[in-house]
Amino acid sequence: MAASVPATPPRDRAEEGILYYIQRYRLMGVDRLPAERVLAEKLGVSRTALRAAIGRLEAAHMLECRHGAGTFICPVKPVNIFEETYSFSDSVRAVGRTPGSRVISARWKKADAGLAERTGLAEGAPVFELCRVRLADGSPVSIETSSINGVLCPDIDRHDFSSEELYAVLDRSYGITVEHGAERISISRANADESNRLGIPKGAPVFFESALEYDAQHTLVEYVKTVINPALYRFASVGGKREVVSEGARAWLNA
Amino acid sequence: MAASVPATPPRDRAEEGILYYIQRYRLMGVDRLPAERVLAEKLGVSRTALRAAIGRLEAAHMLECRHGAGTFICPVKPVNIFEETYSFSDSVRAVGRTPGSRVISARWKKADAGLAERTGLAEGAPVFELCRVRLADGSPVSIETSSINGVLCPDIDRHDFSSEELYAVLDRSYGITVEHGAERISISRANADESNRLGIPKGAPVFFESALEYDAQHTLVEYVKTVINPALYRFASVGGKREVVSEGARAWLNA
Repeated sequence: MAASVPATPPRDRAEEGILYYIQRYRLMGVDRLPAERVLAEKLGVSRTALRAAIGRLEAAHMLECRHGAGTFICPVKPVNIFEETYSFSDSVRAVGRTPGSRVISARWKKADAGLAERTGLAEGAPVFELCRVRLADGSPVSIETSSINGVLCPDIDRHDFSSEELYAVLDRSYGITVEHGAERISISRANADESNRLGIPKGAPVFFESALEYDAQHTLVEYVKTVINPALYRFASVGGKREVVSEGARAWLNA
Repeated sequence: MAASVPATPPRDRAEEGILYYIQRYRLMGVDRLPAERVLAEKLGVSRTALRAAIGRLEAAHMLECRHGAGTFICPVKPVNIFEETYSFSDSVRAVGRTPGSRVISARWKKADAGLAERTGLAEGAPVFELCRVRLADGSPVSIETSSINGVLCPDIDRHDFSSEELYAVLDRSYGITVEHGAERISISRANADESNRLGIPKGAPVFFESALEYDAQHTLVEYVKTVINPALYRFASVGGKREVVSEGARAWLNA
């Protein structure tokens, strides 16, 4: 084995050091990191390397620098684990926070050619379109636009989705549960309306998620498009057979 | 059912229209869309609405506007389907393109405290660190930094990873296959080095993926961090039981 062991680049060493420090002292959102001078000394790295590492962790939404006040750990983000998370509300509750919704619009429409093509619904079929800002502890996290197969849920418009959860309504009032689906994730940029509603700059990068959700009989339940503030939400996956995921990997996913 | 059916907002109607047009005429990368005036007429939308929709599809990396030349469909992006894709190379081949690698560095190092904490390896354990630009048809798509459990693969440094694939080497030379793992996806911004290597502006949004990969015996095989150009790669998931994913959902995932 040609075991030449060069040093890790200083910025990487500083980054690993900060993350280790956070774990070691069990810091969490919104704890403050020690002052730059103190932390650089503790980690045995230069202040230049430390600053580069902090910049990177800030870009990854793990740290937040507040001018004059210091550097803070970002609060625990809800995480959508593809194989295990079935709703926004569940993912928020899983990290001990409180989910909520603000309804932007709720209305009946007819499936147009594009929606029909995408979902397999007939053109002109009734669709209940529900557009909500999703909240965690009252802060806006995402904007969700659901096109719900109206044939499954007549009169669904009598529900108030600022206080009721969509999947709970579908289950309790119509006996419908989502059993499987397909999701796509890309990066987009917030438009003016999205930036206002999410409280982020216009043009800021956002996750764009779209999904088709089905019940056990392969009937389409909803087609949903979601624009997500990446500072407040994460995606993860447990590949392979779910039951063999090791404890270490599980802890790391939820860290 | 209070079936009031208001019109879809013009921008949404234009967006659905463009997507339907692309499917209807089986356009693909790098076909050109009709001129704005012609397309607006075909879709029955205003040019303002059409422009807003094109802007949005451009932000989502589905269309590309080239000044003076027109608006083009982006080439098919490889897609990482969490439950089914086991390597970058496989995802590129799956869309009929040719995977490749450019090696930035390949060296032995010792696991530092941070890496040990994250992976469960002992501090000081030998790690083979492989840093590659991953290519599709010669274009840089991502930068992958793999920390490979060195105990499993002595002498792995004799392989040339610009022509050999890591998982093929692990399998053929060491009998190691990755059987399960855990992945996390967030959005970061390209630093100077990443922007040079990926050919994107500094500060441009990128996917940041990190993963722990294990063999069937729960031994860590690699910890890998990847910075990905979102214009050239996508993520997707088939939730629920894999075998019940409907044909429609499958087609939509790969569209």
